Amino acid sequence: MTSYATETLQNYQQKNADRARFLINCPDRPGIVAAVSQFLQGHGANIVESDQYTMDPMGGEFFIRIEFECPNLKEIADKLEADFQPIAEEFQMDWKIMYVSDIKNMAIFVSKEPHALLELLWEWQSGDLMANISLVISNHEDAREMVESLGIPFYYIPANKDIRKQVEEKQKELLAAHEIDVIVLARYMQILTPDFVQSFENRIINIHHSFLPAFVGAKPYERAYQRGVKMIGATSHYVTNDLDEGPIIEQDIGRVDHHDDVEDMKKIGQKIERSVLARAVKWHLDDRIIVHGNKTIVF
Amino acid sequence: MTSYATETLQNYQQKNADRARFLINCPDRPGIVAAVSQFLQGHGANIVESDQYTMDPMGGEFFIRIEFECPNLKEIADKLEADFQPIAEEFQMDWKIMYVSDIKNMAIFVSKEPHALLELLWEWQSGDLMANISLVISNHEDAREMVESLGIPFYYIPANKDIRKQVEEKQKELLAAHEIDVIVLARYMQILTPDFVQSFENRIINIHHSFLPAFVGAKPYERAYQRGVKMIGATSHYVTNDLDEGPIIEQDIGRVDHHDDVEDMKKIGQKIERSVLARAVKWHLDDRIIVHGNKTIVF
Amino acid sequence: MTSYATETLQNYQQKNADRARFLINCPDRPGIVAAVSQFLQGHGANIVESDQYTMDPMGGEFFIRIEFECPNLKEIADKLEADFQPIAEEFQMDWKIMYVSDIKNMAIFVSKEPHALLELLWEWQSGDLMANISLVISNHEDAREMVESLGIPFYYIPANKDIRKQVEEKQKELLAAHEIDVIVLARYMQILTPDFVQSFENRIINIHHSFLPAFVGAKPYERAYQRGVKMIGATSHYVTNDLDEGPIIEQDIGRVDHHDDVEDMKKIGQKIERSVLARAVKWHLDDRIIVHGNKTIVF
Amino acid sequence: MTSYATETLQNYQQKNADRARFLINCPDRPGIVAAVSQFLQGHGANIVESDQYTMDPMGGEFFIRIEFECPNLKEIADKLEADFQPIAEEFQMDWKIMYVSDIKNMAIFVSKEPHALLELLWEWQSGDLMANISLVISNHEDAREMVESLGIPFYYIPANKDIRKQVEEKQKELLAAHEIDVIVLARYMQILTPDFVQSFENRIINIHHSFLPAFVGAKPYERAYQRGVKMIGATSHYVTNDLDEGPIIEQDIGRVDHHDDVEDMKKIGQKIERSVLARAVKWHLDDRIIVHGNKTIVF
Repeated sequence: MTSYATETLQNYQQKNADRARFLINCPDRPGIVAAVSQFLQGHGANIVESDQYTMDPMGGEFFIRIEFECPNLKEIADKLEADFQPIAEEFQMDWKIMYVSDIKNMAIFVSKEPHALLELLWEWQSGDLMANISLVISNHEDAREMVESLGIPFYYIPANKDIRKQVEEKQKELLAAHEIDVIVLARYMQILTPDFVQSFENRIINIHHSFLPAFVGAKPYERAYQRGVKMIGATSHYVTNDLDEGPIIEQDIGRVDHHDDVEDMKKIGQKIERSVLARAVKWHLDDRIIVHGNKTIVF
Repeated sequence: MTSYATETLQNYQQKNADRARFLINCPDRPGIVAAVSQFLQGHGANIVESDQYTMDPMGGEFFIRIEFECPNLKEIADKLEADFQPIAEEFQMDWKIMYVSDIKNMAIFVSKEPHALLELLWEWQSGDLMANISLVISNHEDAREMVESLGIPFYYIPANKDIRKQVEEKQKELLAAHEIDVIVLARYMQILTPDFVQSFENRIINIHHSFLPAFVGAKPYERAYQRGVKMIGATSHYVTNDLDEGPIIEQDIGRVDHHDDVEDMKKIGQKIERSVLARAVKWHLDDRIIVHGNKTIVF
Repeated sequence: MTSYATETLQNYQQKNADRARFLINCPDRPGIVAAVSQFLQGHGANIVESDQYTMDPMGGEFFIRIEFECPNLKEIADKLEADFQPIAEEFQMDWKIMYVSDIKNMAIFVSKEPHALLELLWEWQSGDLMANISLVISNHEDAREMVESLGIPFYYIPANKDIRKQVEEKQKELLAAHEIDVIVLARYMQILTPDFVQSFENRIINIHHSFLPAFVGAKPYERAYQRGVKMIGATSHYVTNDLDEGPIIEQDIGRVDHHDDVEDMKKIGQKIERSVLARAVKWHLDDRIIVHGNKTIVF
Repeated sequence: MTSYATETLQNYQQKNADRARFLINCPDRPGIVAAVSQFLQGHGANIVESDQYTMDPMGGEFFIRIEFECPNLKEIADKLEADFQPIAEEFQMDWKIMYVSDIKNMAIFVSKEPHALLELLWEWQSGDLMANISLVISNHEDAREMVESLGIPFYYIPANKDIRKQVEEKQKELLAAHEIDVIVLARYMQILTPDFVQSFENRIINIHHSFLPAFVGAKPYERAYQRGVKMIGATSHYVTNDLDEGPIIEQDIGRVDHHDDVEDMKKIGQKIERSVLARAVKWHLDDRIIVHGNKTIVF
């Protein structure tokens, strides 16, 4: 199945050799769309998909995501970016061009519960997550067999709060060696240091097993059960230094009732966690997310 | 349309002259169902519907709701209840028999926003809420016309936290005069005193405009917007003296995204509030809810 | 409340005096977005919102909806449209500009069941349906009081299949007299003639009480019950001459189980019908829908 | 992981050595619940869970599912069943007692698409499907590796409509040899003969990739795309000789929009198929389903 995933990625790369995604945000003012679309047309690019959003239409912030095709894209990429510089300055833009054929390198961190990891591996094998899963890091050995059977390197790094620095040193080495672009915490039950978080700003995706901001922190299902809620949820968000307070990417919920004890809630919740995390990761890989302050715009 | 509601209620009363609901909870032990079903059969009653639940099967609490039909029910009701007393004592039961033809008298409290009130009136007119809506009390005049046009008495009682005692005195008089069984806070934006709450224990139903326990207290939509959630919700619960901490009856949610500002969230939320409150009130009127500690069992 | 609706509409009109929506579809080819955005910028217009979609990216059909602001829009509207003509011809565009301040005139047709009508009236009173509800036409008298109490003209026109032509003649006169832009069939249980349908192509919105294409035609709830489905639904679509086969605008579903008989399904279904129809009508009024063949693109 | 599944099943068996499920349906009349609960109490059994339902309360059909615990259950099982015979006759009951420790033997049939099979294997490994997965039969070799890696026998039996009889002979031999109780068609794309279906009446569970009765038969996603629906669904049902017309166990849906082509719909649909089938199989294994005519009662 791994070879299927590899083949799918290669096909995807070839098919999208000339495709890129343009992500821009800047203060809103007339003429942005016209300037960008003229620029693209002037460089022989064709707009395939475009989404825009203005936060507070009167004097607010403008966001746009444009997916475009351009012949010989990789050869002219440098020139394209250089030529865009004056426009970017004129409109005070934050911008980047993401080339679809630059497949992102992904690391997955996991602790004991494998369901979120399994879902990602499944989606990846099915050709739905366009990333190289470069490695899996865990503070438990449980997932080794499953990960290695897919030809993905698995690293066991025991962790606890007392050895956090040393653990992160080892992790950082591995991440650097694999040129990792994005880290997914697929139920990794360790807190990361501010230093670590900062070096992957808006590139660490976590799944929290509650409908945030309800049940921030530990044991959300236990607390949901105690509170007697009629629905439980899961939240995927970018990691910041405030626990479970980072920009939310996606949430979903499921119904529970008085029959459901904590174990039932966990079972129901795991299905929600799986699908919420998979959607969030997919949107990140497809460059659909712009982070603005503590919020996400998901195009 | 009021006359339609009245007619529907009368038909319902006649049709259900011989029907009652038996609500029981007690420590779990063998023989409860056998004892109760034998008792009912021995008194000529036929079980029409039955739901039971054991919280923690090993040495836990047992709950049952039985809907039964019994010829000449109202004539033998006293005897029925007296005869059941020994069984109740043997099994240490909390129990009550609710006679379906005893239509409950309902008071609705509302402030400025009318959507939750309107939904209840609509459901009532459609024959879906089997209650006498005896009166509406508001600290604003806005809803008067709509309420009075349906022939329902409307009382305007200005309220604020400084005159809470006097306000509640007036309210209590009206509630007593109308022999009110259940109070629905259909977006009533005043806090009730512990004294008031206690005199209607587990009989005051509130709708809170968030997915509790997220956003307890004031301005939940504003805070949801600030937090950047991807779903908003509503919660209906019995009122206790801990603000928004009472036993939850029902919850639901709706999706929002970056396009939705606070006003959009309110619009989306109002639809959720309407349906969540209507379901909670309906279940209360149908005697489907047993409160146990800070949780509800909804049969 | 009517005066509230009127006031809301007037505010909306004033606030949007300079706002319009540009709807375009044409064969896909490079340069469309650039051409349109340059055109708008050249005429002093600012793009506020923009959505586009290409059906089958290789050699397919291109669709775009642009919402823009332009100072003194109504004064320059004729010039704007004339100036756009050459671009439209170059790209073989189907296009229209809808001016937001041109509030649409809406007629609602209803038979006996009032729930869908009531929902529309409610949304309208709440300021969520930006239309003039110019008149209600019914083949029953039931809804008269409710409609007239809001100051909306109500016309009772008895109808059956034998007098279809005469009935439609009367209806057409009324529709012409009120300059009706859009007709909503809010559970109107009469079939319209091809002639009538053609004169309002893609401007008659129906709500069908099933999840189409399941249960086309009469008595869908009865047939859903017979089939033993676990979910029921509702579908809003534009009316064509093929019964229940027109372009679908919106659908939704609700859960049922073995406890629910036909009457229960109707109750559950009515809530779904209400919200599905209200969303479809709102999207139509906001010029969010492009019909293409037998499908809708809803921006 | 297989050993984990085996261990989980053994624990489950031991834990439930004294537990059984009583499934009864009969014409409704007073005294059924009393008779059954007295009978159970008289044999030392304690009712743990009980659900009942009367189809058409006036002179209709009565259904009940009782889960009970009884010391030394397996030793007294024969006597229990014999003693119940007179009651069964008096009330004209269809009944069976299912002993929880009698783990059902399950066969899974699959063709090329593995997602539904994978979900069942996953749930089984997670300890959520309490069955012996005795074998997998496929008319393709694709799933062999995945199935055998879990220690489950995999049989490749090429099939097409011309050799249906021979194919089913081989299948029946395998099913007999493994004493199969229930067959799950996890996207098995071959039609079964009436003879085969009859020998497993109400014990063959299929997943159909549409919201039945919409899109009966082949290529439902293609037809959903052509029709322009806004939601797609999946339906799990018992197989009868009328294609896709058997008693429905569970359905669910997901949203699609104009962006989604047939391939997108398949991806979205697969997730729905997976969860719908898993729920239906779980309910069957837990003896929660009574088939009545062409409908299911799911307790």
